[in-house]
Amino acid sequence: LPSEPRASGLFAPVFVSDAIAATTSDEAWLQAMLDFEAALAAAEADAGVINAADAEAIAAACRTDGFDVDELGRAARLGGNPVIPLVRALGERVEGDAVHAVHWGATSQDVLDTAAMLVTARSFDVIAAELAALATSAADLAERHRHTLLPARTLLQHALPTTFGLKAAGWLTAALQVADRLAWARDERLAVELGGAAGTLASLGPDGPAVVAGVARRLGLAEPLLPWHTDRTRIADIAAVLGQVAGVAGKIAIDVALLTQTEVAEAFEPAGPGRGGSSTLPHKRNPVGAASAAAAARRAHALVGVLYGAMVQEHERAVGAWQAEWPALTELLQLAGGAVAHMREVVGGLELDTERMRANLDLTRGAVLAERAALRLTPDLGRARARQLVEEASARAAKQATSLRDELAASSPLDAPALDELFDPAGYLGATPSFIDAALAAYRSREPKSGAHG
Amino acid sequence: LPSEPRASGLFAPVFVSDAIAATTSDEAWLQAMLDFEAALAAAEADAGVINAADAEAIAAACRTDGFDVDELGRAARLGGNPVIPLVRALGERVEGDAVHAVHWGATSQDVLDTAAMLVTARSFDVIAAELAALATSAADLAERHRHTLLPARTLLQHALPTTFGLKAAGWLTAALQVADRLAWARDERLAVELGGAAGTLASLGPDGPAVVAGVARRLGLAEPLLPWHTDRTRIADIAAVLGQVAGVAGKIAIDVALLTQTEVAEAFEPAGPGRGGSSTLPHKRNPVGAASAAAAARRAHALVGVLYGAMVQEHERAVGAWQAEWPALTELLQLAGGAVAHMREVVGGLELDTERMRANLDLTRGAVLAERAALRLTPDLGRARARQLVEEASARAAKQATSLRDELAASSPLDAPALDELFDPAGYLGATPSFIDAALAAYRSREPKSGAHG
Amino acid sequence: LPSEPRASGLFAPVFVSDAIAATTSDEAWLQAMLDFEAALAAAEADAGVINAADAEAIAAACRTDGFDVDELGRAARLGGNPVIPLVRALGERVEGDAVHAVHWGATSQDVLDTAAMLVTARSFDVIAAELAALATSAADLAERHRHTLLPARTLLQHALPTTFGLKAAGWLTAALQVADRLAWARDERLAVELGGAAGTLASLGPDGPAVVAGVARRLGLAEPLLPWHTDRTRIADIAAVLGQVAGVAGKIAIDVALLTQTEVAEAFEPAGPGRGGSSTLPHKRNPVGAASAAAAARRAHALVGVLYGAMVQEHERAVGAWQAEWPALTELLQLAGGAVAHMREVVGGLELDTERMRANLDLTRGAVLAERAALRLTPDLGRARARQLVEEASARAAKQATSLRDELAASSPLDAPALDELFDPAGYLGATPSFIDAALAAYRSREPKSGAHG
Amino acid sequence: LPSEPRASGLFAPVFVSDAIAATTSDEAWLQAMLDFEAALAAAEADAGVINAADAEAIAAACRTDGFDVDELGRAARLGGNPVIPLVRALGERVEGDAVHAVHWGATSQDVLDTAAMLVTARSFDVIAAELAALATSAADLAERHRHTLLPARTLLQHALPTTFGLKAAGWLTAALQVADRLAWARDERLAVELGGAAGTLASLGPDGPAVVAGVARRLGLAEPLLPWHTDRTRIADIAAVLGQVAGVAGKIAIDVALLTQTEVAEAFEPAGPGRGGSSTLPHKRNPVGAASAAAAARRAHALVGVLYGAMVQEHERAVGAWQAEWPALTELLQLAGGAVAHMREVVGGLELDTERMRANLDLTRGAVLAERAALRLTPDLGRARARQLVEEASARAAKQATSLRDELAASSPLDAPALDELFDPAGYLGATPSFIDAALAAYRSREPKSGAHG
Repeated sequence: LPSEPRASGLFAPVFVSDAIAATTSDEAWLQAMLDFEAALAAAEADAGVINAADAEAIAAACRTDGFDVDELGRAARLGGNPVIPLVRALGERVEGDAVHAVHWGATSQDVLDTAAMLVTARSFDVIAAELAALATSAADLAERHRHTLLPARTLLQHALPTTFGLKAAGWLTAALQVADRLAWARDERLAVELGGAAGTLASLGPDGPAVVAGVARRLGLAEPLLPWHTDRTRIADIAAVLGQVAGVAGKIAIDVALLTQTEVAEAFEPAGPGRGGSSTLPHKRNPVGAASAAAAARRAHALVGVLYGAMVQEHERAVGAWQAEWPALTELLQLAGGAVAHMREVVGGLELDTERMRANLDLTRGAVLAERAALRLTPDLGRARARQLVEEASARAAKQATSLRDELAASSPLDAPALDELFDPAGYLGATPSFIDAALAAYRSREPKSGAHG
Repeated sequence: LPSEPRASGLFAPVFVSDAIAATTSDEAWLQAMLDFEAALAAAEADAGVINAADAEAIAAACRTDGFDVDELGRAARLGGNPVIPLVRALGERVEGDAVHAVHWGATSQDVLDTAAMLVTARSFDVIAAELAALATSAADLAERHRHTLLPARTLLQHALPTTFGLKAAGWLTAALQVADRLAWARDERLAVELGGAAGTLASLGPDGPAVVAGVARRLGLAEPLLPWHTDRTRIADIAAVLGQVAGVAGKIAIDVALLTQTEVAEAFEPAGPGRGGSSTLPHKRNPVGAASAAAAARRAHALVGVLYGAMVQEHERAVGAWQAEWPALTELLQLAGGAVAHMREVVGGLELDTERMRANLDLTRGAVLAERAALRLTPDLGRARARQLVEEASARAAKQATSLRDELAASSPLDAPALDELFDPAGYLGATPSFIDAALAAYRSREPKSGAHG
Repeated sequence: LPSEPRASGLFAPVFVSDAIAATTSDEAWLQAMLDFEAALAAAEADAGVINAADAEAIAAACRTDGFDVDELGRAARLGGNPVIPLVRALGERVEGDAVHAVHWGATSQDVLDTAAMLVTARSFDVIAAELAALATSAADLAERHRHTLLPARTLLQHALPTTFGLKAAGWLTAALQVADRLAWARDERLAVELGGAAGTLASLGPDGPAVVAGVARRLGLAEPLLPWHTDRTRIADIAAVLGQVAGVAGKIAIDVALLTQTEVAEAFEPAGPGRGGSSTLPHKRNPVGAASAAAAARRAHALVGVLYGAMVQEHERAVGAWQAEWPALTELLQLAGGAVAHMREVVGGLELDTERMRANLDLTRGAVLAERAALRLTPDLGRARARQLVEEASARAAKQATSLRDELAASSPLDAPALDELFDPAGYLGATPSFIDAALAAYRSREPKSGAHG
Repeated sequence: LPSEPRASGLFAPVFVSDAIAATTSDEAWLQAMLDFEAALAAAEADAGVINAADAEAIAAACRTDGFDVDELGRAARLGGNPVIPLVRALGERVEGDAVHAVHWGATSQDVLDTAAMLVTARSFDVIAAELAALATSAADLAERHRHTLLPARTLLQHALPTTFGLKAAGWLTAALQVADRLAWARDERLAVELGGAAGTLASLGPDGPAVVAGVARRLGLAEPLLPWHTDRTRIADIAAVLGQVAGVAGKIAIDVALLTQTEVAEAFEPAGPGRGGSSTLPHKRNPVGAASAAAAARRAHALVGVLYGAMVQEHERAVGAWQAEWPALTELLQLAGGAVAHMREVVGGLELDTERMRANLDLTRGAVLAERAALRLTPDLGRARARQLVEEASARAAKQATSLRDELAASSPLDAPALDELFDPAGYLGATPSFIDAALAAYRSREPKSGAHG
């Protein structure tokens, strides 16, 4: 529905994708406000509150072309919101007496809150598609690299062997969970707001509830129990899921940035002309997608705080908290959508150096398998003795820069074939295969029947 | 399960209730960690990983008495978390060879994350009960005051008449929504964490998944698809709902504080010896519950930000983000629980001055019914003329401090009975009754069959 | 220096003034980046690093006209920042061989960080002027209303008498303090950043420090000890002062909004055509300036958090934290500047109802002077007896809706003249006059000699 | 002055040092409140407001022993703050009629705000000492490692050579700046609060200002222009500097954590029994100090947000914002102090592997000197040709895993001695020595004459 502007300005395109820019632009907001006014008039005509011809005249005028967003914004400064000048401008566009039926029974907050829900709904569609594509790429990596060994790292230290497939399965699982939350919020929490000047729908008399239902149906939004002027749990739910979208993108981003380090060099963002270059150092392969997504996530989380703080609203309309929501929600949609778009692109084109992964796993010269060695020796030596022997061998290996295998060859009862088996990291992966299977099964169970987001 | 300390210290009791203090205390955390170790051992015995006698010896030792929380905390400083010294201390308590079976296959994060879920589950029970009691009180106010008139206030200005019942219905609806979110999070999102040193359960070999399932079942937690070491969407969901609990409490708090103002004087917090007094001004009736809840909400929302920011965790265990979660989650549970406890108490004992409400509604000398007057005159005069006549009468009334009714008596075709009807605010409430009914129906549909939280 | 765009878009003008929009626009950033490149070339020519003709050719090309901000932004998405395409575009504009001298020795971060300082410096000038005007208006109110009585309100309850002059002196004092911080940050903390690709200025060899000094001198910025690539204490200082500017504006805003309440009605925002109107309720006088400033302050404080969080930057250039600064700093300048612009306008045109203030002071029927009554009776009755007598009289007055004066007339030894004096609130103001004098003296000591911001 | 509790509880010691725990404990707060009451009485006796014997009796009672912090806290729940019960308890302790002189003319906020300043002052002393020790260690590293080569890393990619001395000089410079801010805030911004019930000092009559001055002098705090009940710029200044302290600690922490990575292995936290161990992986050397400091910094920054948000306070005393300050300030002092204590310890005992640093510098096989090669070839080939030749050689080296030196030996006019010189990273450090000198000079200029914090 909204027009299709590209992300514009000097900094915004670094963080915001064109797709989410389109659904959150000023024009998109304007269209959503006009959609509300048209649906209101139509629902009121259905209920007999205004006449059908007036509703049609209003609907015909509810198109963004010809409205001047900057002018509305400047007028908004005087009245405190852009609805007052919008209603005036809309009135000037409708033919004949229909002017009196414009915005009938509604208040500014009805328009802005319902428009916020429409903007959110349309943006959620964009974000859901990005998440689906990210999940598809992560699932593909999980499948293809289920046996690709690399070190698991805890507190940035090598811990035990894992596989890149399990790492990708972790990304996948996180993406699926936030996609589920997004779908729930889309279906259950995006509701029309219509309460009139004080939340009572006084000027609609007995027709109020029917009009609310009609507007909800026409806009594809839920019908709330009550007007939610100052019950902002819906906004908080939107903020909560968007913050999670950004958080999941940020988690993948930090993993990619760390894998891309010169000393690690296990993964690289997709290459392309001009992508990730340095202004001075042509050899660099900067993780620009990860950096941009991580930056977007930081900003997104601050906006979650703005929207949560704004739950505390005075009486029937707030002095400040409500007004803070409009730009905060807009930016949060942009940044969450932008962050996941970056990581969808990065994960979709991620280049892996699996040989380097395997080589890095040997950097500790066997120490990542010390736990396994102690387990292996336990039946023969008992737990305490086995652990002590491995600890002493590990200490010698660390001191002399030898391998744990060599030290155990010298000090333990294990023979060469036993040591070969013991120090094969592929044999010490525990539940890794079943975890990957579980993640992939969950992914497949969510796939739409059609190949819609293949 | 946990012991029952009271909120302690100089400031904490201002914000934190005894009930939530009990489920979030250091002792409660300690018990939850020990519950994990006991359940792990039992599940491993079931799976044949360790022997049953060892599991029983471990279970017997998993009681908090005798552990020194401060000592564990100080040792935690060296190792970075309190699990390392806890496992050591637990080992010293188990009899015989069972020491080798303690903590088998688990890592520190498994213990702390699962304990966090147990602490959360037990705290959610407390908060759910507070929310239920708050809802009951709000429902009672909505029913009893469905006809009690007062001004609706937007941007702190009188707008139109509303009823206190609708105001209370708004509080009720918000409380019901967050109670639903809490119940969902309790059932779906509180899951066991068990992944071992690197999230692969390597040392459990093929038995890993069965052990995870066994621990989950024994602790009453969900079984996750994968270990969630660095997939923190579950923590974010907990943060999201707790922030909403605090936000709803904060919204009610600000309403109460504003109603309690000397100039408004429509509502008062429950009285009691020493409650709300001033150290210097004995006549004051300070809204201390509202102030404390509002303060708690501010702090809670900052902690939501900490937990959302902490979603961005490195590889298989984070350097800082994870560690920040422990106190942040603990405090967030305390503050959300504390805020709603305050407002449950305040709403449960709220004193209303309904005469003052009605009197305040007259402060604008009829202007709150100007919208209605224009509607009433429209059939006779047409919309434009009706609106103009009312605006002129309103301007005169404002200028001369007369009533809008008197001005319209002089300048409109309406006679005295028509004016009587017009200026009766009870006649201009629109959908108020049906909104209240909807909120109460939603409340009743959620009531447990037993009168548990009546 | 920068061009003069107006605040544009649907929501931005509600929060952002035209003046601060101009100094923080994309064009302003672009100009600042070009100013850096020109100053760098000139300083390098001075040091003999490049030749003077090249520096002149570069300076001639460093004008914003002809650059396409949106194109730079879109190219920034690939490389992670807008400097890479800017340097390329600048190179295309310089004549002859000077292209090789463009951006010599600098890295992207040098350009963006120094540009951030220039944008900040120019925006600080705007904000300082707004603060000065706000201080002038507050000083005027403090002087004119030094004797205007109204209730002091603590926890929104009437406490004791105060004067509106003291209230305004409080606003004034806060404004002076943040103006001082702003001036300090302007003079001491806005510094050039120049470190080259790694903070060593390697490609400038021994000339590095001289070039840094030259750039600093030419741009009117301080010269730092070291390049501050990842030492962000300067950015944090900027954030700190801007957050305080927003906080002071927010504090005044909340006072104004509360004073404007229908039941209080002691102050009103300046009137004007279309200002503060409601879309449905023509009688309302909404505190739109206060609401907008309060909303801006909320958003500003979240951005302070982004910039403080961004102090934690990796090694010699960050992956995400640095990138998050650009839009956060830009918006924070806009919102702090916008908030103070609103309150400068509101305080400058504030309408007071001093009769209503005086009348409100009587709402408690003398209870606001109970403390004084006890003091007055102490010489005669002793402290304990005096306090008890007043408490009993207060209780009777509250219960029977009589005045404390009448109750004391009946129950105390005070005669009518003594009671007259006692219940004259003008006599119980303590240090109010000297506090007002102190604030005004501080204000006057800071006034520039010329009447620049009269 | 305050007693010396150790950090206690299960989690707190991970983040909080014993020293800062002592100055921020409940006992420290209690002592500070009593210090205020004693100083108030003494200043009032000096001014003749109360008699000297009463002041002495009060001073004698102002010792923490015998007060029950938990009891005060629980009573605080009723009245909204702990001062009301404290004054009552203090009254019970003073001998004779002095009870009537206790707390004379003061309000709860006077006590808590001034106590906050004393707690802050005492905590600042602790933090200043930690910062001084951190600076000393960093200065030592800067001096000793001024020639120790390692790669500078931007976006986690090798950029150019730098030295560990310059890295440490960056830490040093940041620490010096925040130490300066801390000293400024200590001297200029920590002020007594004394305004009485409404900020007018009404009950002190003409003696008010003299009493304020006396209290300030006795407590070693500044005397403010006005009572600052709801002008929270001082609190914001404290928050600002503490957030910077935490940010500087967090920046050093992230550097250390990254240097400690298994693949990088250039630096290690100080070793010690039990320090940094893993519960399952004995070979690990976890950066626990860095992780704890990074976690503390995250939490600290959220608290900065709480305190900035709390600048917006209603009228003469706030409903929630003020109350939120007490725990937020306390925790912020603890976390900032705790973070810097961790990094003081880590930097003070940092183990460096300088051979590994040098080896890591070769990982790109000369690419980190590509910029230098192009510079070196420019006099012979012209800039464009030189750059092209190096880019082609770099591309071949990257593709064939050869060194840039070998490629240039084959394709450039440079002979072996020239290439030796070119590829010696020690020759391409630009201003590194002068930057280190500047940082050390700044450090030395700040050193106290006595070796107080050597």
